[in-house]
Amino acid sequence: MTDDVADACLPAFEALHVTRCRADGTGTDADDVVVSEVPVAITFNGLSHAVMMATPTDLEAMALGFALSEGLIASPAQCYGIDVTAGRLGCEVALEVAQQAFVQLKHKRRSMEGRSGCGLCGVDSLAALDLQPEPLPARPPVPVAAVLQAMAQLADHQPVNRATGGCHAAGWATPDGALQFAMEDVGRHNALDKLIGRLAQRRLLGTAGFVVMSSRASYELVRKCARVGIGTLATVSAPSTLAVAIAQQAGLVLYGFSRGQQAVRYAGVAGGAGSAPG
Amino acid sequence: MTDDVADACLPAFEALHVTRCRADGTGTDADDVVVSEVPVAITFNGLSHAVMMATPTDLEAMALGFALSEGLIASPAQCYGIDVTAGRLGCEVALEVAQQAFVQLKHKRRSMEGRSGCGLCGVDSLAALDLQPEPLPARPPVPVAAVLQAMAQLADHQPVNRATGGCHAAGWATPDGALQFAMEDVGRHNALDKLIGRLAQRRLLGTAGFVVMSSRASYELVRKCARVGIGTLATVSAPSTLAVAIAQQAGLVLYGFSRGQQAVRYAGVAGGAGSAPG
Repeated sequence: MTDDVADACLPAFEALHVTRCRADGTGTDADDVVVSEVPVAITFNGLSHAVMMATPTDLEAMALGFALSEGLIASPAQCYGIDVTAGRLGCEVALEVAQQAFVQLKHKRRSMEGRSGCGLCGVDSLAALDLQPEPLPARPPVPVAAVLQAMAQLADHQPVNRATGGCHAAGWATPDGALQFAMEDVGRHNALDKLIGRLAQRRLLGTAGFVVMSSRASYELVRKCARVGIGTLATVSAPSTLAVAIAQQAGLVLYGFSRGQQAVRYAGVAGGAGSAPG
Repeated sequence: MTDDVADACLPAFEALHVTRCRADGTGTDADDVVVSEVPVAITFNGLSHAVMMATPTDLEAMALGFALSEGLIASPAQCYGIDVTAGRLGCEVALEVAQQAFVQLKHKRRSMEGRSGCGLCGVDSLAALDLQPEPLPARPPVPVAAVLQAMAQLADHQPVNRATGGCHAAGWATPDGALQFAMEDVGRHNALDKLIGRLAQRRLLGTAGFVVMSSRASYELVRKCARVGIGTLATVSAPSTLAVAIAQQAGLVLYGFSRGQQAVRYAGVAGGAGSAPG
């Protein structure tokens, strides 16, 4: 497993020349700051696995989180090392994983031979879908007040979004609603993988707490949280039906439209003001 | 090619029981409407190709648009038929394509044998990335006023988003800024594929006009537009660096933060108020 050191890092944004255009046809040349999106290739023990578009910060955390949240390794201990290199075409993140995990990965890939995949990590047919999350262990519910309190702190942890307006964030909060840290990325799933990886690096996976995100709640965010044992997810915007369904199956508490003094609970058990946090 | 008839269609949203939670710990049970997200598998001449999560409306248009925008068929005429079926696990869209396109697709897939892909349609290594868009033909620029006018009409064409708050839209406008129609989906790339497919169904691909979108501008949206010859894309929110770079290479005019009386031009030639539209 990688130590909790600063990840190798490229700039999170770039300064670009733009033109601010007005409806009357006039325009002003200006400098603007745009969030970085670069191709990031992930390899396991030298074997190419996936390329994703991501903001090239915290890539060690992202790769570790991806491996965990996609079930490619069973625990952080199965990751022996992560090496990030930046090249002309993009970044490469090389993971060295336990032989047991690698054998399973190769077996999984052999069963997909001759196929290509899109959007769902190599899945090319409905039969190959894995939509059955493992049930989460029961935990004391997080009070809604704590969720709203953590969400209110999220903007303060989004420097890249403040500069660019184009970056999602995933934050980790303790059950009393104190936001500990947040990870940013142009893609919401990458932001969550970065957060999960950072939790693993800090040996916080499995501890009491919950995730807040700046985005909508889609299927993959709920699936990733459920896979690593995160029991509560709150998002700023709307969920999808599949996100709600997977949350219900897993026993994950899912809040959407978490804004100001209100949140809508779409799945899971209530966390009243008087409930013991966990 | 499929005719311009209404596509086979499942509900775009579902009614769900939710709890509206307040910070003081009280809550109210309520009914809410959530945007549908279901797995959609796409096959070409019986061969599985990809599964994506999508809102199950206009799936014929989405599959046709996907095939065009990913360069899997060279023209709408190479698509002989599209069949949509809904099953227990999700939807399947079966495309019947010209032998020439299918041979190329199989060849492309053979070169990926034994690999899996993620996020970039089967690409698993940086070397396999195709980030070089074909240059777009020169066209008279679209006036900024027309872009802003079309964008202002987009919300009126988003019934699913109005109901759910969780749905993106891609709209098609004529060069004078009249929004013709828009397509909605939980994923922005799907919304754009639905729009491209609908344009193909109505034989409007290649005609003068431009695209407005409710989302940010990421790499894949610009790449898809460039591939089907759409020369102007305007989005409500921020672009990424790679979206800007690809737009510049292709000669695509890219507007971001297109709101109210202003838009920021990140790439492409100015469209002044006095320019001839096209």
